[in-house]
Amino acid sequence: MSIFTESETRGLVRAVLSRAGVPACNVGIQLDMLLEAELRGVTSHGLLRLERIVARIANGVADPVTAGTHHWRAPGFLAVDGERGLGPVVAFRALDALCERARTNGIAVAAIRNSNHIGMLGWYVEEVARKGFSAIALSTSEALVHPWGAKRAVMGTNPIAIAVPTGDDAPFMMDTATSLVSMGEIHDHASRGAAIPLGWALDADGNPTTDAVAAKAGAIAPLGGAKGYALGLAFELLVAALSGAAVGADVVGTLDSDRVCTKGDVFIVMDGPNPDLRGFLQGIRDLEPADGFPGVLVPGERGRDCKRRRQREGLPIPDALWSRMQDLAGATAPAETS
Amino acid sequence: MSIFTESETRGLVRAVLSRAGVPACNVGIQLDMLLEAELRGVTSHGLLRLERIVARIANGVADPVTAGTHHWRAPGFLAVDGERGLGPVVAFRALDALCERARTNGIAVAAIRNSNHIGMLGWYVEEVARKGFSAIALSTSEALVHPWGAKRAVMGTNPIAIAVPTGDDAPFMMDTATSLVSMGEIHDHASRGAAIPLGWALDADGNPTTDAVAAKAGAIAPLGGAKGYALGLAFELLVAALSGAAVGADVVGTLDSDRVCTKGDVFIVMDGPNPDLRGFLQGIRDLEPADGFPGVLVPGERGRDCKRRRQREGLPIPDALWSRMQDLAGATAPAETS
Repeated sequence: MSIFTESETRGLVRAVLSRAGVPACNVGIQLDMLLEAELRGVTSHGLLRLERIVARIANGVADPVTAGTHHWRAPGFLAVDGERGLGPVVAFRALDALCERARTNGIAVAAIRNSNHIGMLGWYVEEVARKGFSAIALSTSEALVHPWGAKRAVMGTNPIAIAVPTGDDAPFMMDTATSLVSMGEIHDHASRGAAIPLGWALDADGNPTTDAVAAKAGAIAPLGGAKGYALGLAFELLVAALSGAAVGADVVGTLDSDRVCTKGDVFIVMDGPNPDLRGFLQGIRDLEPADGFPGVLVPGERGRDCKRRRQREGLPIPDALWSRMQDLAGATAPAETS
Repeated sequence: MSIFTESETRGLVRAVLSRAGVPACNVGIQLDMLLEAELRGVTSHGLLRLERIVARIANGVADPVTAGTHHWRAPGFLAVDGERGLGPVVAFRALDALCERARTNGIAVAAIRNSNHIGMLGWYVEEVARKGFSAIALSTSEALVHPWGAKRAVMGTNPIAIAVPTGDDAPFMMDTATSLVSMGEIHDHASRGAAIPLGWALDADGNPTTDAVAAKAGAIAPLGGAKGYALGLAFELLVAALSGAAVGADVVGTLDSDRVCTKGDVFIVMDGPNPDLRGFLQGIRDLEPADGFPGVLVPGERGRDCKRRRQREGLPIPDALWSRMQDLAGATAPAETS
């Protein structure tokens, strides 16, 4: 692990994406998404994903040029065919259209299919909330989570992100999967040879396990048992009903490098009266923490703190990953500021 | 506890509401909501609530006549002043308008303030989904839940309900609070002298407790720790940003009989392409259950099964509650079919 400045990291990622055939107009968005996740400490959605993006472009299942085509089913309902485009490129073009429409219509929804992995959902809604809109984002994913009471995975980790303007330039933002943990956390335990707590996952036979390696071939538990199962399933069905995306085991293309991606994304953007909510949130920060907690956090703020720190002090990146990115960029990748 | 037919129960509740001054045009909706919850086994939102509704009407903090006033802030955004009306009456008038608008606009949202308790959220979205729309419902409530890592309650149990058309006349529906348990479950343990599991709640001093009586004066844990806390807080802020409703400790009027209700409700209704999702759901029902589970359930279906059974076999209602309802109805309440 070494520390790299944001600038040199951006330079290298930009070189990788450009060499992979991503046009200049699209490099910035895909780059921003990967860096944003890395800066906030969400490494599972950060630079780790770059190699797969490059491979998917090379394999023809990701088109680096298109931003998708838009069809307004109705004044408030945008159906997006992502045309296999890069997830963030397709999503931002849709969000631009939604914000413009929400301003006159009060609310608008985009249902996106045939687009690639969009990464950290929270980033999208936070950008929208900075413009004064409340936003909800949903995205489906490969079947990794078991229904409550079942032995195998048939649902995605199906995250939700919500952002709300609060009266200043840092909106409220939360972003969580509906699984108890991420498959990334289980892979992390497996790679360290560490056991996972009982209850996190089942093995391939559907039995509870503390063996992280066995869990990788099994199923992750839903968040909070029956309730998180209900939420995750609702999101999977809602995204499918609105976008026509695949469900269950038919969702592919966010964890492999050679299959057309069949998941769906939904964004809802709303233009509310937006009362000032800063006092309420400050009251939460000011609460006396419970034993063992250093303080009471407002969701999203730890990630922002991490981002500020890493922008100042640099990003810790595994040497093997950096070296792999150098390979992908070709021999002489320049730093952004050089 | 005695068993009463749906018909005689409806008759008695109708008599209570009529005597309390609810006009015939509004009795049916409030009655349907209470019965629906009772039939599905959600007793916390059922007939238990009737006495408080009557008291709130008598105290002038619930107006049994109005269905609220509508202001379209924009073509897709309905702002509703509930004018202290009965929650279900105000909500259904708003949902009728939303469904009509969603049909032409693709999506519409209602943000409701100044309305009373609306009961089981899932019922509303299920009714909307029967008409072919996907729907999301949110409602805020009194501060009973502590932020993750805090010692006292500053958030509501803030439920969400989602319904999605699936291709037959029984849409998917889920409905859950963002708290680990309901305050009703804690009251139930307290009344039985039973301990609660550690982790459910804190006492008034913010210490973890297994004493249900102490927990009644304390705070309930959020669902799944930090994740459920983030979700519940997001819903509280989103409802406030859209409706202008109160937040935190300023939310009152759903657990008392004399204060104007300050919570908010939000409904989002969407008109998607609605692919057939029955095969996927049947696949879930057909999964091999894990040890200790009789089968794998699809959310919402246990409630529907309970409803069918109770419609056939009658509703179990505590004798004290029945007798109290008889008092509220006056001496000679007729059964609905008599």
